[in-house]
Amino acid sequence: MVPGNRKGSRRIALTVQYDGTCFNGWQLQDSGRTVQGEIEGALKVLTRDNIRVVASGRTDTGVHAIGQVIHFNTTSSIPLQRLCIGMNGILESDLSVKNAYNVDNTFHARFSAIEREYRYLIYNNPQRSPFMRYRAMWAREPLDVEYINDVLGHTVGEHDFASFCKKRSASENENTVRSINSARACMKGEYIEIKICGNAFLHNMIRIIIGTVVEMGRKGYPPEHISEIIAQKDRDAGGYTAPAYGLYLSRVMYEPGLETMDSAF
Amino acid sequence: MVPGNRKGSRRIALTVQYDGTCFNGWQLQDSGRTVQGEIEGALKVLTRDNIRVVASGRTDTGVHAIGQVIHFNTTSSIPLQRLCIGMNGILESDLSVKNAYNVDNTFHARFSAIEREYRYLIYNNPQRSPFMRYRAMWAREPLDVEYINDVLGHTVGEHDFASFCKKRSASENENTVRSINSARACMKGEYIEIKICGNAFLHNMIRIIIGTVVEMGRKGYPPEHISEIIAQKDRDAGGYTAPAYGLYLSRVMYEPGLETMDSAF
Repeated sequence: MVPGNRKGSRRIALTVQYDGTCFNGWQLQDSGRTVQGEIEGALKVLTRDNIRVVASGRTDTGVHAIGQVIHFNTTSSIPLQRLCIGMNGILESDLSVKNAYNVDNTFHARFSAIEREYRYLIYNNPQRSPFMRYRAMWAREPLDVEYINDVLGHTVGEHDFASFCKKRSASENENTVRSINSARACMKGEYIEIKICGNAFLHNMIRIIIGTVVEMGRKGYPPEHISEIIAQKDRDAGGYTAPAYGLYLSRVMYEPGLETMDSAF
Repeated sequence: MVPGNRKGSRRIALTVQYDGTCFNGWQLQDSGRTVQGEIEGALKVLTRDNIRVVASGRTDTGVHAIGQVIHFNTTSSIPLQRLCIGMNGILESDLSVKNAYNVDNTFHARFSAIEREYRYLIYNNPQRSPFMRYRAMWAREPLDVEYINDVLGHTVGEHDFASFCKKRSASENENTVRSINSARACMKGEYIEIKICGNAFLHNMIRIIIGTVVEMGRKGYPPEHISEIIAQKDRDAGGYTAPAYGLYLSRVMYEPGLETMDSAF
């Protein structure tokens, strides 16, 4: 039964944030704690509906979200603010709802998204920080932000990113062409924050880009070397996969934007 | 056997930092993971000595440290840098050594300390943050930093802080007079950071001061009301004890300062 097909159902979008450390990723599984499972459980308590939620995209185990967007249909007439406060009362402290929006029935958290922004955090210090385990990749040697930006500049635009995609069985002839709209690193004290925006990303694509950039710097490659790696269209040409815990899904953009819609706060 | 009494022994001071979440506090116990236990275990591996370490002060379960200082004696001739790197290789990721110093045999991490600085972090936002659980106290209603500073101003100086000390059996006639050298709050985005400096603090003193300040604001008391609370010398007059996970031991000062000594980095 799809609640969206029933008379009197409404569609709600939520912005949610989570510390990915203690989740087996976004997607519902037979066993193991997932973000989707926790959210659907809280919605069931509040609406008494068996609600299936749709996210802008899945996040892997350990990956965090500051601005994940989800949608669902419900026949419940619960006010948006009560929904937010009620969910945050039920959800554990590593997952929270930031805001709720009344959206049109044509809004789709995944398919309506026009851009996704991810951030990758690197803690760049000779000594590791106890406060950054599970929150940022640790790089012991000083990294050069200008170099990182030069490398990232070559990834912007439409490319076949097969070199930056988790290997799959050869039978899956997935289209590996994607567009990166922007990719910039900036230094914030002992941290380097890298923001990458694009319409969609391949599995592990951002983490492999980060690993490749760091590895290229360590091995002394010129920034333009990344174009050769892209041209090879072979995962073995790319660098290592940077750890999941440095990655944050930070923003998902829609047209019109969520901020134009009726919201809880 | 006290290694310090043996010929050829040297004294080393370490600055260490830890995320207190998964420790049963600083002090060694019969069971349970403690910071002291982990450090002594790592030192045993590196020096083959049964080393007992002394800290500037104990931290309770859940309390963090950015700049805890400890000292110990050893007959090992391990170079300071190898000691730091070796320890960080052994210690788990929620505890690390920042630096090591060759100190005089008269240096004592606890008794030589002339000032201790603690920080208390409050996350001040209508919605709780998944990233701040175990890292900051959450305050939902907007707090007024100017008011907090006005209240804190009345705590500076020498006072009997019995109203801000964990209750003990009446038989313990502990001297509860302490001096606060400075206490200041500042706003950092969605956070309020409170720095409190003093020579020494009573058990839970800072957490009770924080709880009292927040409670006074909520109940609309004028800032000078805290002087009445101090005057009552009764724990029941003070406010609640703010959570341990918002508290950080941030700096311990010595005369001469550690920075003047021979160090690993």
